[in-house]
Order: sequence, then structure tokens, then C-alpha cells
Amino acid sequence: MEHKSVMLDELKEIVGEGGWREGQDIARYLEDPRDRFHGLSQLVLLPKSTQQVAQIVSLCAKNQIRIVPYSGGTGVVAGQLSTEDQDYVLLSMERMNAIRDLALEDGAIIVEAGCVLADIQSAADEVGMMFPLSMASEGSCQIGGNLATNAGGIQVLRYGNARDLCIGIEAVLPDGSVLSELSPLRKNNTGYDLRHLLIGSEGTLGIITAATLQLKPKNPETTTVFCGISKPEDAVTLLRQLRMELGDVLSAFELLSNIGLQVLQEKFPEERQPLGSAFEWYVLIEAAGDKGLRDNLEGALGNAFESGLVLDAVIAESYAQQEALWRLREMMPEANRLAGAICNSDTSVPISQIGNFIDKTFAAINAIDPALTVNCYGHVGDGNIHCNVFPPDGMNKQEMLKTQAEKIEAIRMCINETTAACHGSISAEHGIGRLKVADLERYGNAAKILAMKQIKSALDPHNIMNPGVFF
Amino acid sequence: MEHKSVMLDELKEIVGEGGWREGQDIARYLEDPRDRFHGLSQLVLLPKSTQQVAQIVSLCAKNQIRIVPYSGGTGVVAGQLSTEDQDYVLLSMERMNAIRDLALEDGAIIVEAGCVLADIQSAADEVGMMFPLSMASEGSCQIGGNLATNAGGIQVLRYGNARDLCIGIEAVLPDGSVLSELSPLRKNNTGYDLRHLLIGSEGTLGIITAATLQLKPKNPETTTVFCGISKPEDAVTLLRQLRMELGDVLSAFELLSNIGLQVLQEKFPEERQPLGSAFEWYVLIEAAGDKGLRDNLEGALGNAFESGLVLDAVIAESYAQQEALWRLREMMPEANRLAGAICNSDTSVPISQIGNFIDKTFAAINAIDPALTVNCYGHVGDGNIHCNVFPPDGMNKQEMLKTQAEKIEAIRMCINETTAACHGSISAEHGIGRLKVADLERYGNAAKILAMKQIKSALDPHNIMNPGVFF
Repeated sequence: MEHKSVMLDELKEIVGEGGWREGQDIARYLEDPRDRFHGLSQLVLLPKSTQQVAQIVSLCAKNQIRIVPYSGGTGVVAGQLSTEDQDYVLLSMERMNAIRDLALEDGAIIVEAGCVLADIQSAADEVGMMFPLSMASEGSCQIGGNLATNAGGIQVLRYGNARDLCIGIEAVLPDGSVLSELSPLRKNNTGYDLRHLLIGSEGTLGIITAATLQLKPKNPETTTVFCGISKPEDAVTLLRQLRMELGDVLSAFELLSNIGLQVLQEKFPEERQPLGSAFEWYVLIEAAGDKGLRDNLEGALGNAFESGLVLDAVIAESYAQQEALWRLREMMPEANRLAGAICNSDTSVPISQIGNFIDKTFAAINAIDPALTVNCYGHVGDGNIHCNVFPPDGMNKQEMLKTQAEKIEAIRMCINETTAACHGSISAEHGIGRLKVADLERYGNAAKILAMKQIKSALDPHNIMNPGVFF
Repeated sequence: MEHKSVMLDELKEIVGEGGWREGQDIARYLEDPRDRFHGLSQLVLLPKSTQQVAQIVSLCAKNQIRIVPYSGGTGVVAGQLSTEDQDYVLLSMERMNAIRDLALEDGAIIVEAGCVLADIQSAADEVGMMFPLSMASEGSCQIGGNLATNAGGIQVLRYGNARDLCIGIEAVLPDGSVLSELSPLRKNNTGYDLRHLLIGSEGTLGIITAATLQLKPKNPETTTVFCGISKPEDAVTLLRQLRMELGDVLSAFELLSNIGLQVLQEKFPEERQPLGSAFEWYVLIEAAGDKGLRDNLEGALGNAFESGLVLDAVIAESYAQQEALWRLREMMPEANRLAGAICNSDTSVPISQIGNFIDKTFAAINAIDPALTVNCYGHVGDGNIHCNVFPPDGMNKQEMLKTQAEKIEAIRMCINETTAACHGSISAEHGIGRLKVADLERYGNAAKILAMKQIKSALDPHNIMNPGVFF
């Protein structure tokens, strides 16, 4: 015990005054955004440099002190929360938030892990470029966490996940050595791609300290459209038709339901569905391209209207209207939370399976209890459909958690089983963390899980990096 | 020895009649496309199924028989050639060449490793989509090798390298287990990304047996332009200006020099530089986008002409003219080979460093011997510049190899050193193979190389998978 406290003192010395927090000051680091877990760490370290991170990790490796990397704290699978044990050190990257270089000719930006995603977007915007990674939490999530969890969001259809936008990385490996590959290279075939191994490893193989990100040119025209459709399959058909007709101009293609809009309007009555009448399903489309795009898109939507695929549509006429349409989609997670969802899934399926997956999920949940309400929505362009389930009328979340925990677990598992039956992933963009360890074991490919364990043991033999995540 | 021959018999039994070759029949598998190496294997296995590959690898793992995976045989760093030892089994994937599924709604194609790249392009084209990976060897290289080496080519600027187009993989790991993740998912965050670890691992961590590839929508308009410019820096500026003005429509942006065109015309006199007069440097631009693109591109080039960035330009007026312009770029590697290049480099540097890199390389090679000729060309959009060096007039390659091997090595090393000084990669798209093992050790990040060795030992403890590559 004394030994341990000496160690903690040594860690505090590395970061110096203002570089650590404990006691009452760390309450916010132990909170779960969905209020299901509570972290137990007693010390938060706030390093200022890669060198400090390397010193911390070296010392921890030598003394087998376990580290939980902490980024914006917005993760929903408890990857950033040490729920098992209080003898973990939280390592928050928030003070490493410099933009190290804005390399315009290289079309790249080099940022430290603690940069908030929205700040990176703004920095790109100021020089006439864009950083397309975008999600509801962008105002508080940090790029280190985005990369550690390979965050997805709304523009994956065109620009890919976080990993697809990262061309270089700096990281401290579990032995304290520094992997330094930040040069903005688009082609670099010199051995195993450790960048991609670290991205999505959820802090179990090292601490990402900085990254080189691709900037994309802005498109001269952006058009946002909201359409009423009759069923999810039609969204899939429409997506394919528009891509065939217009080329690679679609940047977002989001599915919403009338049920979802009702949940939203109950919590945010000022947000209105913009079409003259209600439809069972909707898609929110964003296209970005060269001059003339809007006319071409209007023509293509006209064809879809004539063939009965699109039942009604509104094209945003102003930036304000564009924003209003997007709020319908972006405020959905918050509306679900406020409405007391008892289950939030993060499934992806092959795009061709979206209709099938939604039908099967509705049927399976209905079989458990027909009084449950299901709000399915998400990203058609990448097959990532979120299902939020609400208690029967007259019952609230807390009550149900207390009295019907088994039913809630049955709902969760029926979504997982449907996902597996549709050849999908039980965690599309949120990761595994500590929440889905059993799910990974159940649904993961056996060869993959064994290889993961072998890699983990090889790189982190003392299991100090975010233990409890994945395994 | 007898033990070994029993093993080989067992291997032959797995693949059955017609499933293996030896003796005279394997000569072509032992050749190097650049005639510098000669392979030594005695047996080539030609499995028909993933199950056969798994059986082969299991047996080899049990008996520590070393395997060299063999794809199209087009690699230029001897990754597919067992130069050290004849006790290797070559595993050719050529009979596993089925297209397993063309999943149009998913925007994906599932192919076996032995599919020839051009056949995949054609299959996509037939259904109105495209598979954008493209390179000079596409008529014979196979997708398994493209993925194992993370091939690049000419459309990386817009569509990325081979890894960026692959969303699923099936592979046999070094213990014979099968990693099976072929479902066409764009989002799947369930543990370490073994797909990306295997891609670019050059057969040292397993055998890729099949892959799910992304198809991209074709663009309604494609325009090809050939411009005269005065220096490489102007290509970089032009690239940036066009992206700022037109958005993300550029799919290729290739640099050529007057020296290079002279090399080409000497070997292929029917190919002509299409501008009225000669310039020191040229760029070949391809843009693909929505209707109206050509007009927008013409406008942007007009601005560049007025500002003196573009000295002259021709826009292809027909498919035939487009093809003729592309031949100037695509036949360059063959022209270099026929002209007897004594050194071919595969450097990438940050785009902003291209001009600096070319200047420094010319100066350094000139300092070695001012009579040498240097042909620098390549992909401006991804910083991948190839330098081919030719003997002084009156001397040929064979002579120089015999009498001036040291000078050739000095040239090679001066390009490497210049690359490192420009924060570049000594292997942009060709990989390390057996050729560049010493270079990797010299220029690689120490933490990276150690981690690579740890991963290799963990997954392939008996070092049976393509030993000699990387380490």
C-alpha cells in the first residue's frame, strides 16, 4: 500500500503541478453518459506532452499500474470507465489539445489527441477545407477517443470512418516507447500498419497522442433533402438509384420513422416534420458536389417521385432550413435519452439487409411485449441502424430497470440475434468497451478473438493498458 | 529428408490431382519481373478452396514447413520469391478465382484472392459500377497480392490504396484457423482490425483467401487533360487550386517530365506528346464528376493559364484521345525497363515536399555522376514519385551492373537519404519484401519494428509464413 502511494507520487511528479486531479475534482471523469456505470479511479493524470505520456506509461509498465485512457468521456460502452477496480490511473489527454500543423498543400492537419472534434472541423473550415468526421457529440468528444474507438457518424457513406481519415499517428506503446509516424503520407508500405491496429483498439494497445488527418476539399454546392417514403427497403433502392444517376455525390443518407419523429416532437415540440402530411418513414439526404448539383439532384428525385419511390420531398432553400432538417436527425439520440429508452442498439447490417433487419427486429420485440415502442433510425449509407426501445405507456425507465431487468436483457439479446442472423455487427460504431465483452465472445469469430488475445499479450504482457476492455 | 518427402506427399494429397506443380512446370513462378532474383522453391501448391488452404497451413504449421504465398507474380521487391532456401512451398492462389457475390445493393463485390484485378474491374463495369484500384499490372496481378501488399496505383488521390477499398476479409492464419469476416459492413467496431493488419503484411501473418471490396458509382462525366508546366512545385499548386475550386472531383494527377517522354518515345515512337511545343514538366489530370464537370474544369484551367501556372493544355475530345494521353503515363514503367534503368525508386513524400525532393534528388545524383539521366515521374496527388536512373550514354545496364555496382548502390542510397530528409517513405506502394529488409531496419521507427516483431512471433511462432520478408 505504501509502495503504491510512492508510485502515485512519482506519477504526479512526471506531470507536475496542475497536471493531476484527485478526490472531489475527479467526479466528472467517473460518470457514464447513459448513467449505467460509475468509474472507480482515484487519480487522473493530465499530461502536457508526448514525452510525459511516455514517462507515465514506462513507469506504469515497470510497476504494473493499470491505465485507463480518457478522452472526451462521450463513449457509451464504458471504455473510459474503470468499473472493476479503483487501482487504475485515468490518463486524460485534454491538455494535449494543440493543432501542431495545418499543412494545406499536403491536405492534412496534425493534431494532438485532446483536440475537440468540432475545433478540428473549424480549423479546417477557416482555411477553406473540411474535416468530414461528424457526429452528435462533436462539441465535446476528442479526436484521440474518436480514433481509439474508430468513431463513425453521419458522413461514412462518402468519407469513411475515423480510421479512413487518419493518415498518420503518434502513440505511446505499452512499454513506453513512442511510435512516431505523423508525416502526411498517402502511400507508405513499410511493414504492418500499426496505425490501423491502434485505431479501434480502444486504448488496449497504447495511447494515441497525436494524429495526421486528411482534409477534404469543400464542395461548391451542398443540397439537403427530406423525403417521405413508405418502407426502409425503398430507402435502399433510392440510395442505389441516386448513386447510379449522380455518381459519388451523396454524403449522408439517413433513415427516420414517424415513430421517431413523434418521440422527438414530444421532447422538442418546436421541431416540426417539414412535409405536408405524415409518412411511415423518411430519409434525410445530403449531396455535395460541383456547381449544378442541385439541378441534377432535383431531376433524379423527380424520377424517383414518378416511379412512386419518393412520396413527397422538400429541398432546403436556405442554410437555416438545412439546419432545421438536420436537427430532426441530430437531436434524435438526446430525444431518446429524455424519453427514457430502455435499450439502445448499435447494429450494422449489409445495406441490402436493412429492410429485413428492421422487420425482424420489430416482430421479435413485439413478440416479447406488444406494448413496447421501437424507434429505428440511422445511417442507410453504411447499414448502421440504431434501435431504441421504450417502456409501455404508463411505465418509466427506472421502474422497468428495477422490475423487468430480464425483459430488457431479452430485448437486447433479440436485437443481437437478429443482427447476427442478418450477417451484421453487434457494434457498428460504438465499440466493445467493458459493456459488450460477453457479446464479443458470443458473436465474434473464434480465430479473430484468439489472434486478438495473442496480439494483446505480445504488446502488453502485463495487461496494463485499459484492462477489462474486449476481454 | 525422407520425412520431408512424406510431408510433401501429404501436401499434394490435400490439393489432389492437378493441384500441384514441380520440376520444369514451375519455372515461371521463380522469375522476378525485374530479373534480379531467382526463386528456389521446388513445389507449387494450387489450392481450390479456403478449406484446402487451411489444411495446407495446418500441416505446415505442425511440421514447420515454410510457405511463400504467390499471387500474380508482379511484385518487384521479391516478396513472392524464396531466394534464401529451396525448402519453401509456394502457395499460388490462381485457382481460387471465383467472384463469390456481386452484391449491388450493398455496393460490394466478394472475390477470391486469385481474381485478376482487371476481371474485377470488368465485373463492376458490367453492372454500371466501378472498382477504382488501377495500376499498370492490372491485367495480371491478383487481388490477393494487391491486398497483401496494399497496392496503390493511379487513383489513390480520390479512392485510396487497396486497403481503403476493402471492407471485409477471409484469411487463413498461421495456425490454420480461418478468419472469416466477409459480410459487406461499412461500420464494424468489434475488436482489433485484423483486416488492416493482414493487408500490407505481405503474406507474413496469413494467407488472404477472399475479400469484400467496395464498388463506387461511376461518374456521369470524366475529363482527361494534359498540361505543360514549368516545374513540379507548380503541379502541387495547381492540384490545390483545382481542389479548392472544383471540390473532390480529381481522380488522378500525374507528373511527367520531358526527359521521361524522351525515354518513352525512344522505345515507343508512335506515342507523341500532344502539345504544340515541349515543356520541362507535364501533368496528366483526370477529373470525374457530375454533369457539367467539363465546363467547370475548363473554367478552372483557364484561370490557371491566365496566372501562368499552366503553360499549355489539351483536353481529350474522345475516348481514343483519353486513352492516348493515358498511355504516356501507363507505358512509362515498361519504357524505363526497356531503356535499361539501373535504379527504380518508390518514394513517397508529403505533397508539399515534392518539388524539394525532386530538386534534391537531381542534385545528389548529379553529384555522383553528372552523366547519369534521371526520369522522375509519378502521382502528385499522393506524393508518390518514382525515380528511374539510366547509365551514361554509351553504357548499358548489364555493363554497369558488372563494373559499377557500388555506384548503383550509392544512387539507391542517395534517393533513400533524400526521401528520409523530406520525411518520406522508402516504399510507398511496392512494399518491403526481401529486397528492402535492410532499408526498413535503417529507416523504420524503432518502436514500430519491435512491435512488428512481437506481433509476428505471437501470430506465427514457428515463422512459417513468408519468412525472410520484413525481417
